[in-house]
Amino acid sequence: MKSDYILGVDGGGSKTTARLVHLASGKSWEGRAAASSLSLGLTRSVAVILELARELAFRADCELEQLCVVCGLAGAGERSLANQAHEAMESYFARLEVMTDARTSAYGANGGEPVAVVALGTGSVAMLLDEQGNETMIGGWGLLVGDEGGGARLGVNAINAMLWELDTLGQPESEVGKWLCSQLGNNRSAILYWLRHATATQFAGLVPGIIERLERCQQAKALFESHMQAVERLISATGEHLPVVLTGGLAQISARHLSEPLRARIIPARGNSLDGACILAESLMQPSSSALLTGESEL
Amino acid sequence: MKSDYILGVDGGGSKTTARLVHLASGKSWEGRAAASSLSLGLTRSVAVILELARELAFRADCELEQLCVVCGLAGAGERSLANQAHEAMESYFARLEVMTDARTSAYGANGGEPVAVVALGTGSVAMLLDEQGNETMIGGWGLLVGDEGGGARLGVNAINAMLWELDTLGQPESEVGKWLCSQLGNNRSAILYWLRHATATQFAGLVPGIIERLERCQQAKALFESHMQAVERLISATGEHLPVVLTGGLAQISARHLSEPLRARIIPARGNSLDGACILAESLMQPSSSALLTGESEL
Repeated sequence: MKSDYILGVDGGGSKTTARLVHLASGKSWEGRAAASSLSLGLTRSVAVILELARELAFRADCELEQLCVVCGLAGAGERSLANQAHEAMESYFARLEVMTDARTSAYGANGGEPVAVVALGTGSVAMLLDEQGNETMIGGWGLLVGDEGGGARLGVNAINAMLWELDTLGQPESEVGKWLCSQLGNNRSAILYWLRHATATQFAGLVPGIIERLERCQQAKALFESHMQAVERLISATGEHLPVVLTGGLAQISARHLSEPLRARIIPARGNSLDGACILAESLMQPSSSALLTGESEL
Repeated sequence: MKSDYILGVDGGGSKTTARLVHLASGKSWEGRAAASSLSLGLTRSVAVILELARELAFRADCELEQLCVVCGLAGAGERSLANQAHEAMESYFARLEVMTDARTSAYGANGGEPVAVVALGTGSVAMLLDEQGNETMIGGWGLLVGDEGGGARLGVNAINAMLWELDTLGQPESEVGKWLCSQLGNNRSAILYWLRHATATQFAGLVPGIIERLERCQQAKALFESHMQAVERLISATGEHLPVVLTGGLAQISARHLSEPLRARIIPARGNSLDGACILAESLMQPSSSALLTGESEL
């Protein structure tokens, strides 16, 4: 069956978006679903993506097997996971590629032109597309050992500070600490239970409540300043000359607080990770696409 | 069946130790097995403890149902987990109590006298037994949001520093960074795989390799200094007058590097968490034991 439908998927730690395009007519359909980061579990990720694809195919009145698909997924930097996701889904589609959302973001951000995309979502990662077409990734190592500048890390740091207030003062004193304690539970056992069950998405879900208290709470302000230091460190690590696109839920507020030299490098995004996935999905149809679609380079 | 055997169990993130005592004769048998911290999974924990108990009962020529048992387990601060462990094992024994290893450590450290026990093992936690018999816990919140001063945190911080070298210089430059990279894998995908499968025990398992490089590697030295700051903060949070017992795999080396005012408070342990579990297990047999064996206090 000749395919002239493409499907781009952007799967992060907080949500999944997808766009199906009928190339001949230019008509497109978009949808949105729960998180499908591979870090949250392969089974969940595959279920979310397939259901979203089915919904869009139904609306576009086509079949899954007519689709050329590119999934840009958080957590796909670990090749064995990306391979498993590919294996679980490839039989449904005409063609499928699974890659990191850092990669699709980079292609979307500047229409394939050189750029440093710094993603500040649930996690954090920087992806460089340089003048020679090389791709380099910085960060993206996950919440426990990295992801500084991401939302989940900000949530974790805020909880760390709240627990320290709790341990040394008997109860949280700062406004943000009191609020966090009300969210997590009011005794040790409840807090430990919350912590054991919390995903990165849930830690990141605390960020709006922290930001809301920036103006009137010193502790919240200190936490946000430490977030900004991490963001500046990550941007600085992308070198000095590439234009920088900030993406993710923390992009806008972080951009406003950047120091001047770094702010001068920021350009508006020409597209997002979903646009990048669609660009790459369209290129899947061209015979010369293989070079563009090889996996991540080794270190 | 009248019981005159007690069993004390100390289950941490790296190993489990147990001692069976026949009170009438004073004879005792000790054994050692894999980790049984509840944070590593209830099923594993229960299996390790029951097998160890069976081995000791076999050697002592008695039955499990003759034993009065106290298990001091890492991760038992979350009451629902402790309750599940209790439920899974209670039918095997004459009596059973499951509590945090912080609590058994505190009872063992100074024979039940007032003390602040600061445990620097895989995780970290301080437990205070004050002059009024009150118990207060500081820390012990787990690796993601806390456990500063513990071995797993030191391992995580070392990996974080190694990954930063990798991202910004293309490869690790410090000696400790090179060594860590050789342990985790020499490409992004392998490192992500290692990280996704690593338990707290495995992060803590990197510590000897870090310590080994202290003398000749600035990076290792900086990591250890940051560990010592966390240890000093935790000890300072126990107040100013209680004697301090340091326990856990990092106790000895940390004690040697403490600043003078804190070092002056350190006393040698009269016993360990296993001794505390045995003291509490023996008290299980006394009719007046209920007050001593209630759970953790609320915040």
